[in-house]
Amino acid sequence: MPIITPRTLSGFLELLPAPQQQMERFLQVLRETYSLYGFTPLDTPLVESAEILLAKGGGETEKQIYRFSKGDADLALRFDLTVPLAKYVAMHVGELSFPFRRYQIGKVYRGERAQRGRFREFYQADIDIIGDGRLDVANEAEIPSVIYATFTKLGLERFQIRVNNRKILNGFYAILGLSDRAGDIMRTVDKLDKIGAEKVRGLLVDDAALTCEQADEIMRFIAIRGGNAEVLNRLSAWQGRNERFDLGLEELRTVVKYLSAFGVPETHFAVDLTIARGLDYYTGTVYETVMLDHPEIGSICSGGRYDNLAEFYTDRQLPGVGISIGVTRLFYILQEQNLLNPELNTAPADVLILPMTQDLTASGEAATFFRGRGIRTQLYTEQKKFKAKMSYADKLGIPFAAFLGEDEIAAGKISLKDMTTGEQTLLTLDEAAARVRTTLDARAAGKLIRG
Amino acid sequence: MPIITPRTLSGFLELLPAPQQQMERFLQVLRETYSLYGFTPLDTPLVESAEILLAKGGGETEKQIYRFSKGDADLALRFDLTVPLAKYVAMHVGELSFPFRRYQIGKVYRGERAQRGRFREFYQADIDIIGDGRLDVANEAEIPSVIYATFTKLGLERFQIRVNNRKILNGFYAILGLSDRAGDIMRTVDKLDKIGAEKVRGLLVDDAALTCEQADEIMRFIAIRGGNAEVLNRLSAWQGRNERFDLGLEELRTVVKYLSAFGVPETHFAVDLTIARGLDYYTGTVYETVMLDHPEIGSICSGGRYDNLAEFYTDRQLPGVGISIGVTRLFYILQEQNLLNPELNTAPADVLILPMTQDLTASGEAATFFRGRGIRTQLYTEQKKFKAKMSYADKLGIPFAAFLGEDEIAAGKISLKDMTTGEQTLLTLDEAAARVRTTLDARAAGKLIRG
Repeated sequence: MPIITPRTLSGFLELLPAPQQQMERFLQVLRETYSLYGFTPLDTPLVESAEILLAKGGGETEKQIYRFSKGDADLALRFDLTVPLAKYVAMHVGELSFPFRRYQIGKVYRGERAQRGRFREFYQADIDIIGDGRLDVANEAEIPSVIYATFTKLGLERFQIRVNNRKILNGFYAILGLSDRAGDIMRTVDKLDKIGAEKVRGLLVDDAALTCEQADEIMRFIAIRGGNAEVLNRLSAWQGRNERFDLGLEELRTVVKYLSAFGVPETHFAVDLTIARGLDYYTGTVYETVMLDHPEIGSICSGGRYDNLAEFYTDRQLPGVGISIGVTRLFYILQEQNLLNPELNTAPADVLILPMTQDLTASGEAATFFRGRGIRTQLYTEQKKFKAKMSYADKLGIPFAAFLGEDEIAAGKISLKDMTTGEQTLLTLDEAAARVRTTLDARAAGKLIRG
Repeated sequence: MPIITPRTLSGFLELLPAPQQQMERFLQVLRETYSLYGFTPLDTPLVESAEILLAKGGGETEKQIYRFSKGDADLALRFDLTVPLAKYVAMHVGELSFPFRRYQIGKVYRGERAQRGRFREFYQADIDIIGDGRLDVANEAEIPSVIYATFTKLGLERFQIRVNNRKILNGFYAILGLSDRAGDIMRTVDKLDKIGAEKVRGLLVDDAALTCEQADEIMRFIAIRGGNAEVLNRLSAWQGRNERFDLGLEELRTVVKYLSAFGVPETHFAVDLTIARGLDYYTGTVYETVMLDHPEIGSICSGGRYDNLAEFYTDRQLPGVGISIGVTRLFYILQEQNLLNPELNTAPADVLILPMTQDLTASGEAATFFRGRGIRTQLYTEQKKFKAKMSYADKLGIPFAAFLGEDEIAAGKISLKDMTTGEQTLLTLDEAAARVRTTLDARAAGKLIRG
């Protein structure tokens, strides 16, 4: 029979069992944390009508989308979780209660040029809060606490949530009489981290054709740094000159005010006036999250406030605020940078039972007993030499081996070997289960990410 | 702006939040149970090269597959989890340890004719044990215990695991000199439940052109029923006449022998000689699982032993045994039949905090406190009348509302209202968290399925 060389498509992440266990833990932390904040899980199809997905249309989306037909249906794979959410909320608006808080963790597809660390299939993990007609700014204040809790639970310590407000930016550019060029200016300012202040100023004067005074005022504005109180204080300098600016500043004050109540330490938060995010979408608070020791990675969790989630599917005004984590890319980087805790158990089982008799009855009963106690148990069934069996447990990193021979069966006991310490003890099943549980609980105390 | 009517493709299940919570619980039980049995989770791409997915080719698969191109790549959506597993194991054979036990829960795609209860996108939940070169029959004996544990944890009580062995069938037809017609005969016998014994016999004589004696012997054979011991005993009548039959009978004896050690009660197990499953694939034990009160649903968990998982991708012999649950279809039927326990909490949060002051600091702190205790908490942020806020909690089925006004804040307490009993109590945050936890734990004791 002709053999087809097995391969996985480039840009499609497929993990070996041990890293997959780490990925599962990552996703489980996200599910649990998002749930704690009152977000309900959704699961929408990966395939939608192309007309629905491309309602907004234009730009990179159209080029990157996986689009195909089946019969006479024009279909496509979703490229994010926001468009399917918009469709869902517009469709079910009468059946949902608002504010509607949902999380969704799922794969999305973008046919980007294949490149190391760039994925064509990747997980996004989104939360959004959608209002019907209006949505209080308190929701924008709560979002940093979800970001903080999520990364803290994953084990990340050195990260910072950076926040800006689009009304402040738009108001500021209006004060300078530059409203019509605000988009270009923000795109230029966005390069600050990459090219530095001097070059940004040069581009503002040469390419965006601003006066030196305008460029200088912009540079002064985006250079505002410091503690939250100081930044808010310095922003007051522009207050009273533009209604939108004032409103944005008021919103930013609210976000900052509630940080502590929502459990976000000031060390992990900063106002950053260079952040703009999706120019045609966000209208209020915007968020980015950076790993302080790895600024080259860019933002690992971003989002913001928008005024109209589903304008392409309904006349109903549905404002919202949301954030997204690009899980696959982040996981890949953490793995590459050696930031995943290698001490967490990635074995398929906690105990490997090795029968030392032909008859498997006693071993099967022991397996059933352990499983009844919530211990992940594998019964080793193959006829192999003892050394091969132990090497199997070793390779998989199974923390405990349990031997069951004639002597153990006669004594109603089991020989439990801690594969880490090498210690082997004759124990009743009850004692063995307790020993395994205690040992593993202690070892499982660590978190997924170190850094 | 032109509005596009939001819609979801026919054959693609998209649940409202409350049933989605039930579905999440379903998937979580599967993940936990499969893990208990030492299966490691895998997550392979939904998109693969069409050449890989269609290596076997032929039949319904080619017609139903979603196939498309992107650039010059010929791609397709996976139609099951077995082919991706075969590819994965063949690709990584040097990096895996055998027996390799994996579970995978994921969506698969089949462009079937749209029909009520038929899905084009649906979850499969598979486990497989793959051997390198050989795999002991003990693994076939262990599979019923996974099936039993899974459905029992889901809450199903009235179900039965039905088992047959393909070697027994093939050996039996060889004894009758009907090896070359065994496929046709098995397809006819498979109709027994639908058309009855008399019609099956008629078809065997008329269509399959068997003699009356052959047809009668087949009818006697498939009519064998009773307890395990009795069935095995009656099967011995054919023993010693065909090597394959004898081997199959020996395997069946092993499966039956270990049932009790693996915790499967005899009430939930039966040998059923009419079961054949995928004719060109399975070679040993085969499994079906039926809901006793809903035979019309057919098998809810099926699978079996196969000799060669990845013959299209490698010369290496990789025998295995596996089962699959068609999750989406089963969930849909359980929902339709009203068999999902309505008492389980499907709300997005356990507690809804209703601030009765303008300033949200105290309410935010209370939310942070509850979340720190693992209680899913939502802060109600909108300016609405009290009645509207209560109706929000009601509609979502949130079990507790917590009011925080000037009086509560001054007293350092919170008014906790149990939405089920209507009882409202002034409590410290500590007391409130404990009350919520105790109450919800008691109410969460129920299982997902009733039946």
